[in-house]
Amino acid sequence: MRDLSAAIRTIPDFPAPGIQFRDITTLLLDGAAFGACIEQLAAVVGEDFNLVAGIEARGFVFAAALAHSLGKGVLLLRKRNKLPGATLGVNYALEYGQDRIEMHADAVAPGTRVLLVDDLIATGGTAKAGAALIRQAGGVVVRAAFVIDLPDLGGADALRADGVEVVALVAFAGH
Amino acid sequence: MRDLSAAIRTIPDFPAPGIQFRDITTLLLDGAAFGACIEQLAAVVGEDFNLVAGIEARGFVFAAALAHSLGKGVLLLRKRNKLPGATLGVNYALEYGQDRIEMHADAVAPGTRVLLVDDLIATGGTAKAGAALIRQAGGVVVRAAFVIDLPDLGGADALRADGVEVVALVAFAGH
Repeated sequence: MRDLSAAIRTIPDFPAPGIQFRDITTLLLDGAAFGACIEQLAAVVGEDFNLVAGIEARGFVFAAALAHSLGKGVLLLRKRNKLPGATLGVNYALEYGQDRIEMHADAVAPGTRVLLVDDLIATGGTAKAGAALIRQAGGVVVRAAFVIDLPDLGGADALRADGVEVVALVAFAGH
Repeated sequence: MRDLSAAIRTIPDFPAPGIQFRDITTLLLDGAAFGACIEQLAAVVGEDFNLVAGIEARGFVFAAALAHSLGKGVLLLRKRNKLPGATLGVNYALEYGQDRIEMHADAVAPGTRVLLVDDLIATGGTAKAGAALIRQAGGVVVRAAFVIDLPDLGGADALRADGVEVVALVAFAGH
């Protein structure tokens, strides 16, 4: 199985000093690596869901390609005030201040089974808010899938403590 | 061939009074309609390119699924200050003020052939800026593909006047 970590670039001190930013744009530019990434995700996420939810904006890329390869639909979890219809939203804390994630209020019928997808899980704040939002709308969060896990930051463990199964393709130590 | 327009919801007076917003989130939620959409795009875009460029954020969804189905890579054209590496950018006019679209400066080797993708073309301001940005970086814009064209707003014609071939799956009259 192809090691995807070689296709992921590390940019030091972004967005703040001391942060090693894991940059998936180099993986995306490599059609073979991107294809392998989607195939590896498809192999571990199962098929027991109806929708793949992507978290804006990098999550959209992986969620859309994965959903299409599995014949599923895509649910957009967006930043505030981006969706045209009536929305539900969940606020969550950032290091400084807070952010908000929204979805269309009518996007999921009660009991709809949803796979949550993003490019990376760090502290898990955004993913936990996404899972809470899908549940608030009546959906069932079957599991969450990430290309990259930063296990030292504890996000995957936090999601699991929330009752969400977590899968990831690549892990990097540190943050 | 499936008529995709039935899967696209219209939301009146968003984001401003008098605007009929064409909402592709309903198409995305329908796995069969989303699959048909990507197959219809694949049938008209050709294969004579290396990368599929998606315009943030809805463009990422269609660009990623299309790129994966064709075995191509994905180039992200992002809003300002979102990319971690060194960037090139193009400013463009909005109705009020201006916006900016950016890509990584090292993303395309000279002569790289690129398909530009977004969900919708209206006046074409963003797409024209995206094409100019790819050319500034040394890439060749092979053509541009949209799910929705609003021909009364002239964006497709403006892109063609810039030397970019344009394809779209669905057209809506008005704006």
